[in-house]
Amino acid sequence: MSEERREDRDLYERVMEVSRRRGFLLPSCRIYGGARGFYDYGPLGALLKRKIEEKWREYYVYREGFMEIEAPTLLIGEVFEASGHVDHFIDPMTYCRECGEFFRADHLVEEELGIDAEGLSIEELERLIREHDLRCPECGGELGEVTEFNLMFRTNIGPKEGRDGYLRPETAQAIFIQFKDLYRWARQRLPFGVVQIGRAYRNEISPRQGVIRLREFTQAEAEVFLDPEDKRYPGRWDYERERLLFYPIEEQRKDDGEMLEMRVEEAVEEGLVSQPIGYFLGLTKRMLVEMGIDEGAIRARQHLPEERAHYARDCWDVEVRLDRFGWVEVVGIADRTDYDLRRHSEHSGEDLRAFEELDEPRIVYRPEPIMEKLGPEFKSDAPKIAEELRRIKAESREELEGGLTVEVDGEEIEVPPDCYEIVEEKVTGRRFYPHVVEPSYGIDRILYCVLEHNFDPEEGMFRFPAWLAPIEVGVFPLLKRDDMVRYARRIARELREEGFTVEYDDSGSIGRRYARADEIGVPYCVTVDHDTLEEDTVTIRDRDTTEQVRVPVDELPEILRGLIDGEIEFEEAGEPV
Amino acid sequence: MSEERREDRDLYERVMEVSRRRGFLLPSCRIYGGARGFYDYGPLGALLKRKIEEKWREYYVYREGFMEIEAPTLLIGEVFEASGHVDHFIDPMTYCRECGEFFRADHLVEEELGIDAEGLSIEELERLIREHDLRCPECGGELGEVTEFNLMFRTNIGPKEGRDGYLRPETAQAIFIQFKDLYRWARQRLPFGVVQIGRAYRNEISPRQGVIRLREFTQAEAEVFLDPEDKRYPGRWDYERERLLFYPIEEQRKDDGEMLEMRVEEAVEEGLVSQPIGYFLGLTKRMLVEMGIDEGAIRARQHLPEERAHYARDCWDVEVRLDRFGWVEVVGIADRTDYDLRRHSEHSGEDLRAFEELDEPRIVYRPEPIMEKLGPEFKSDAPKIAEELRRIKAESREELEGGLTVEVDGEEIEVPPDCYEIVEEKVTGRRFYPHVVEPSYGIDRILYCVLEHNFDPEEGMFRFPAWLAPIEVGVFPLLKRDDMVRYARRIARELREEGFTVEYDDSGSIGRRYARADEIGVPYCVTVDHDTLEEDTVTIRDRDTTEQVRVPVDELPEILRGLIDGEIEFEEAGEPV
Repeated sequence: MSEERREDRDLYERVMEVSRRRGFLLPSCRIYGGARGFYDYGPLGALLKRKIEEKWREYYVYREGFMEIEAPTLLIGEVFEASGHVDHFIDPMTYCRECGEFFRADHLVEEELGIDAEGLSIEELERLIREHDLRCPECGGELGEVTEFNLMFRTNIGPKEGRDGYLRPETAQAIFIQFKDLYRWARQRLPFGVVQIGRAYRNEISPRQGVIRLREFTQAEAEVFLDPEDKRYPGRWDYERERLLFYPIEEQRKDDGEMLEMRVEEAVEEGLVSQPIGYFLGLTKRMLVEMGIDEGAIRARQHLPEERAHYARDCWDVEVRLDRFGWVEVVGIADRTDYDLRRHSEHSGEDLRAFEELDEPRIVYRPEPIMEKLGPEFKSDAPKIAEELRRIKAESREELEGGLTVEVDGEEIEVPPDCYEIVEEKVTGRRFYPHVVEPSYGIDRILYCVLEHNFDPEEGMFRFPAWLAPIEVGVFPLLKRDDMVRYARRIARELREEGFTVEYDDSGSIGRRYARADEIGVPYCVTVDHDTLEEDTVTIRDRDTTEQVRVPVDELPEILRGLIDGEIEFEEAGEPV
Repeated sequence: MSEERREDRDLYERVMEVSRRRGFLLPSCRIYGGARGFYDYGPLGALLKRKIEEKWREYYVYREGFMEIEAPTLLIGEVFEASGHVDHFIDPMTYCRECGEFFRADHLVEEELGIDAEGLSIEELERLIREHDLRCPECGGELGEVTEFNLMFRTNIGPKEGRDGYLRPETAQAIFIQFKDLYRWARQRLPFGVVQIGRAYRNEISPRQGVIRLREFTQAEAEVFLDPEDKRYPGRWDYERERLLFYPIEEQRKDDGEMLEMRVEEAVEEGLVSQPIGYFLGLTKRMLVEMGIDEGAIRARQHLPEERAHYARDCWDVEVRLDRFGWVEVVGIADRTDYDLRRHSEHSGEDLRAFEELDEPRIVYRPEPIMEKLGPEFKSDAPKIAEELRRIKAESREELEGGLTVEVDGEEIEVPPDCYEIVEEKVTGRRFYPHVVEPSYGIDRILYCVLEHNFDPEEGMFRFPAWLAPIEVGVFPLLKRDDMVRYARRIARELREEGFTVEYDDSGSIGRRYARADEIGVPYCVTVDHDTLEEDTVTIRDRDTTEQVRVPVDELPEILRGLIDGEIEFEEAGEPV
């Protein structure tokens, strides 16, 4: 490719061109004109995706010890009525009266007026469109009214109208509704975490950012259940020592606001982020850097109140800077409080609370209503007043003496002390809704960031960390001679059996084969040559330096494992060639 | 549990009770009354499922070298119009006019009349229901008319009515529509295979068999592309040597038909099965046996013509015998011919054919129209006739001599020999639709078979092969003493880092902990005791014999790896205790 052509295209285009051609990512349903918001992973993309998921598991399942479950993607309507998604999971939409194209109203206003329109109401967006006489960006036509559009894909479960079903917009809900069993398997101890990796679906109004905004995507989510009275997550690793760029609400609101670089532990100490959110921010940064994403292109940005999802009290995104799209959210870490467990309890009638046994029973005091007194005094209100009295608990007898005030049907009622007697009660535990902190990862976006950040624009090739490369080893016979081909094929097979991902290639010159392997980021290429046949040694070529060493064939798996795991330096792996 | 209670319940109930309680499988959305046809995998179930999928990959991806892709589960309508699913993926349905319950009409007729109703037409089912006055099995009410019900879940993609979208009823279609790229990545050589593991969806009318008939399930499918002129799959392994019970159409139709036990290679030789179907039947049997499924409870049954899917010319199911459900299909191996590639080519206009370069070019002859003659003779039809003439090819010059007949707009037209000249042409290859043989696995059903076939009803525990056990190692301190607890936790952590799935447990007596581990099939339990603290040795207990050996702690990972991989006999693993 000529230098001129290269410079015409931005990084996104170049990364996607290689991805498309070599089988990382390709538009779905292309032979039918494509389907916006849907992408396929080709053979290399699928390998890369599984490596990213496996790394995620390493952090969350193996290291933190969280439980992994797998639930359906299609759930009955009741779940999303309770979760608030039926009411709140909506985007403002408008359309062109001429060409019929649909638009996200807030994005359209943002692009046309250059203002921040996220979180504006339907009415405000409508007003801005009319006031500025905004037109269809496609054809200049008049825009229709702004309406609410629910982003969930709806279907029917069962015959005829059946039951309402929705494709899940997040994996989280299946975890909340199974809380009782999960809590039991966690041996009823907080904190504990449950994760799920799987598809989620959002019927985006007008997805225009290629692989960045998908209608079907893969999420990896962890729901971490915490005691609201001690809302810390004492993780097993030292992620709080990570340095990170923090971009809190206050800085975003300043005209000259800036990102603050500090360690997570400092940010927690200064009250910038809560401890559990801080821990998972640090963890995320470490994971992304391990995947080859530039440290300086990672930041933690706090959601402005108007951006927050309906269930979140606080939320921090981990964003990665991309060439075309700027800062893009790849991970969101939200404090969902007890919102979900409480809502599902209320909607289902199932008690989704945790129970903490106290080390030693505590004594509390409560007013026991005396119905013979309450009845004559309050008539038909007496039962309701008795019910309210029974809810009251106090640490000391004194607090209950001399009369109490209860609220019945919105009215405050004074209950004289002779209407109840004060009883002592032994309490062995407390029942409460755990709070949830949720790190939620968009695997597809992370995969794209991995592609872009590991792309070498000079050479037009991927320089993945060796462990992450979809193909770890290329195996080539120097010449297409029967004896070399046979030897090389045997090596390829043996390496596959040892668990390496291997590509055997015998077509074209050795230089072209190295170039093809380089392009898809193969870190090590093994070549079978004349010496191999005579003395059972092969060369290993290092992708990044193009240097070569010669090693004995029978030590090959061990040496490659050491190189890929970063335990051996390339120079020390064998005899320099 | 008392002996009486045990005997009251069948194996399905017992397996599901343990599965439910310990976290293998649990009904979805239970707090909202459940959702028929949907199940969640709990932590142990998800681990087991991933092991089954990984084993499948070992067979298809690592050993056969097939490419794996990952495509969306939601696809646009055009795909399923072309694939025939919109027209043909239907079940006959009836309903009760009284209680409103829906039924699969053929299943209802089968159950009520004890006949085989699969493949009967809507009219025949309607007639049988009226003739025998069949009633609602739930309430005895009158049954409504029999109609066709399409089993795909429909939704809208995009705003408002948007585009028709369907949740895929099989993973296969995404492979067919990307054939062009896949063929290129396979370096344009047949045969090659492409696989996909992922969710598929079928809106069953009335799923009643628990985990056996799901509306959302996981498929692992391989599409193997073959040259129709040499329709063999020269696999890399010796699966054709497997012995298997064959149950072909002829035997099923006999009154005293029986299953024929023979080697796959014999069945192929006798023309019972085609070679590629035979190969994958043998492969499947080996895989299922490796997962602990009884050899004698596996058979290969050929589909009767009326059972076959609309795309299949031949199909063999691999069935496993279950206690409650009898023979259940877990794998289907279909010969889909060129049906899908041809249909998608026709519907999309994209040429999805393969091209084979010939070893040496062949000479063919074709008529080259002479327009000066054709024009005056045929007037406005001349261009169309010329087009048709250009399609004709012949092996010899003679075939074209003396005039030709072509069809234009449905009419046969005689073209005299002076209207064309016969030219010789060198052909370097041939263009053709590959045929597809498709092994398709139902992962959820296989998982249930694995549970039932590895369940020991005497002891009420799972005896999984060690490699398949969701938890491979239990680690227990003998006593809940600080020093033992600390030591045991360290061992558990180190084993996890070595890649084992580990459960640490310190609650209750050591006997209860062994029993809990046995129930979920943990093959090896490591106990930290007094000797551990003094001399750094631990005991390993074997689940199946309950025998113990003592081994040095620093050799533990290696010994456990050897035991799990079946490379060390337990008796030789250490000092008997």
